Amino acid sequence: MPGERRAGPLRSAQDEAAPAAVAVDCNGADLGPAEVAAGALIAARQGARAILFGPARELRAAAEGCELVDAPLSIAKSSDPARAVRASPEASIVQAARAVAEGRAQSLVCAGGTGAALAAGLFNIKRTRGIYRPALALPLPVPGRPVTLLDVGANVEARREHLVQFAFMGAALARTVFGVDRPRVALLSNGEEAARGSPLVVEVHAELAQRTRTPLAAFEFIGNLEGDGLVGGVADVVVTDGFTGNVALKLMEGVSQRTLSAVRDAAMSSPRARLGGALLRGALRAFRDEVDPERQGGAYLLGLRRLGVVPHGRFTRAGFAQAILRAARGAREDIVGQTQQALQGAGALREAPMSVQVASLRHRR
Amino acid sequence: MPGERRAGPLRSAQDEAAPAAVAVDCNGADLGPAEVAAGALIAARQGARAILFGPARELRAAAEGCELVDAPLSIAKSSDPARAVRASPEASIVQAARAVAEGRAQSLVCAGGTGAALAAGLFNIKRTRGIYRPALALPLPVPGRPVTLLDVGANVEARREHLVQFAFMGAALARTVFGVDRPRVALLSNGEEAARGSPLVVEVHAELAQRTRTPLAAFEFIGNLEGDGLVGGVADVVVTDGFTGNVALKLMEGVSQRTLSAVRDAAMSSPRARLGGALLRGALRAFRDEVDPERQGGAYLLGLRRLGVVPHGRFTRAGFAQAILRAARGAREDIVGQTQQALQGAGALREAPMSVQVASLRHRR
Repeated sequence: MPGERRAGPLRSAQDEAAPAAVAVDCNGADLGPAEVAAGALIAARQGARAILFGPARELRAAAEGCELVDAPLSIAKSSDPARAVRASPEASIVQAARAVAEGRAQSLVCAGGTGAALAAGLFNIKRTRGIYRPALALPLPVPGRPVTLLDVGANVEARREHLVQFAFMGAALARTVFGVDRPRVALLSNGEEAARGSPLVVEVHAELAQRTRTPLAAFEFIGNLEGDGLVGGVADVVVTDGFTGNVALKLMEGVSQRTLSAVRDAAMSSPRARLGGALLRGALRAFRDEVDPERQGGAYLLGLRRLGVVPHGRFTRAGFAQAILRAARGAREDIVGQTQQALQGAGALREAPMSVQVASLRHRR
Repeated sequence: MPGERRAGPLRSAQDEAAPAAVAVDCNGADLGPAEVAAGALIAARQGARAILFGPARELRAAAEGCELVDAPLSIAKSSDPARAVRASPEASIVQAARAVAEGRAQSLVCAGGTGAALAAGLFNIKRTRGIYRPALALPLPVPGRPVTLLDVGANVEARREHLVQFAFMGAALARTVFGVDRPRVALLSNGEEAARGSPLVVEVHAELAQRTRTPLAAFEFIGNLEGDGLVGGVADVVVTDGFTGNVALKLMEGVSQRTLSAVRDAAMSSPRARLGGALLRGALRAFRDEVDPERQGGAYLLGLRRLGVVPHGRFTRAGFAQAILRAARGAREDIVGQTQQALQGAGALREAPMSVQVASLRHRR
């Protein structure tokens, strides 16, 4: 199967002279493909090489000099991305994913949403050997160090071995992309004690505790964390299933927006309040900047043979530039290889598929 | 079995001349039993009769004239409430629950946490006939009308029929305690489409849609809601399992607190900002009041043969007063009977236990 190629041949592309390239699907952004291209231009000035996929005319006008591939067809709004990916090999996200699969680029950025990125990635780039499920990891914009929450929606259900792998995948992201030496990894639950949580969470807790008992472990497992712990700054990575993670992420966004808009409304409610708001504006800007989701570049698609980054469709050029820079950095620091190594060291990779096991049993006989 | 008495004999207590009483366990509050007693005094002035359980000397000093039962033993901090309830019949929460079970009071307020309230309630007041599981319902302090989220932690796991019943229980609460004529009930999920969500959520969605197809249904089912919908004001009741609900609730509290404290910090960061903060303070007070959890009185324990209300341990007298007033109102409006009726009308009550089924089969033969 083409997806089961070993990591070797793909990796060699990174060793060539040109800096690692990021394949960027520009279709699907709220502000249009040109805004993504403008982001690529910002990232290029900071040393990240992008190959843009989208309507060439629009892209060229916005990012002169950038490499680009004319791919006007967008499947960003498709309600069935898996089907759209198979049916439309010429779609921009499919062409971008293929460029990564074929070694013309080393990581993927997709402005057209997670559904399309996940489907195109699984179909073209494929899962890393030994990984059960890709996960979507979102660095939450928390003041100070970001807290990476995963899975925020790649899988609605998870089994024990999936969540265990997510912990390693999140830790590798924190290390390679965010530069955290020894990430503190927690498990989201409804209580801090090891025995609290769904049966699944209790099982995963026990396994992570056991696998990280040694000081050489890839990360520090700090146990269960309740919902408010997500913004408490005690963990670098928080693991949960895609259903809970997605609810948590959207709730956070909702509560933040509601609170900030209430402050804004209050500051418009009287001449006195208006003056107060004006005087406070500068001091609040730092906080607004710190919690601005664009600063983190979006969600990370982990578990494929190459890193993917999925910025939010409503981002501006600044956010798309961040996404491209983070994707370039993740490829350069070899997040895929590092995750693989850590999982192998911990014996947490998926075993060979049944057919291979059967073959090896036959061989032994 | 004593817990399987019919609703009739218990309900008769309400018809007596004295106003329905609320049994209040005063132990376990952060500010001590006297603060709860002070809340009872406020509630009494608004017509709610409370019977206080806790250390008599402290209670009497704070709420002269209130009925009280000397019960100094607290199991609020027990790590195994079910065991503590069985082992300590003299504990304040157990005595309070017994008062409700025996008809001396018609609803329960417990300042000592949900674990103790749930265990004492299940053991003494018992589940309503036909209810699978009690649920903890929290009216989220959202500006405008509160949004009741349930379950926020009574059960870490839920089956289809549990979540279906939670929808009816939440709707009955919205109607009886919050006065919403035809509550809009939603299901928490990771996407709005009917097909989005875990297999459990998809199943529950289909069943709720089917059960509420008639305009005579006890509530309007508005479908799936994503995390940010919790603060969007589109639903009166949002149904989820106790694991997700608990994570969501604590995350909301965490994000709100963090955002408001960032605004506070910003308003202390310079003389200019300090002046701005001072001018804005009055306008922000209305928002703070609206999102103050004490205004809602705490979480509602539904599914027992009587209503329970569990204020947060950190509440002040104002919050405890609200809890008592809400508990009195829920009993007066017969939330238990209304829930039962709605479930019966929808055919969503648990069927008779196996032994009864077998007996009736024998009878037919």
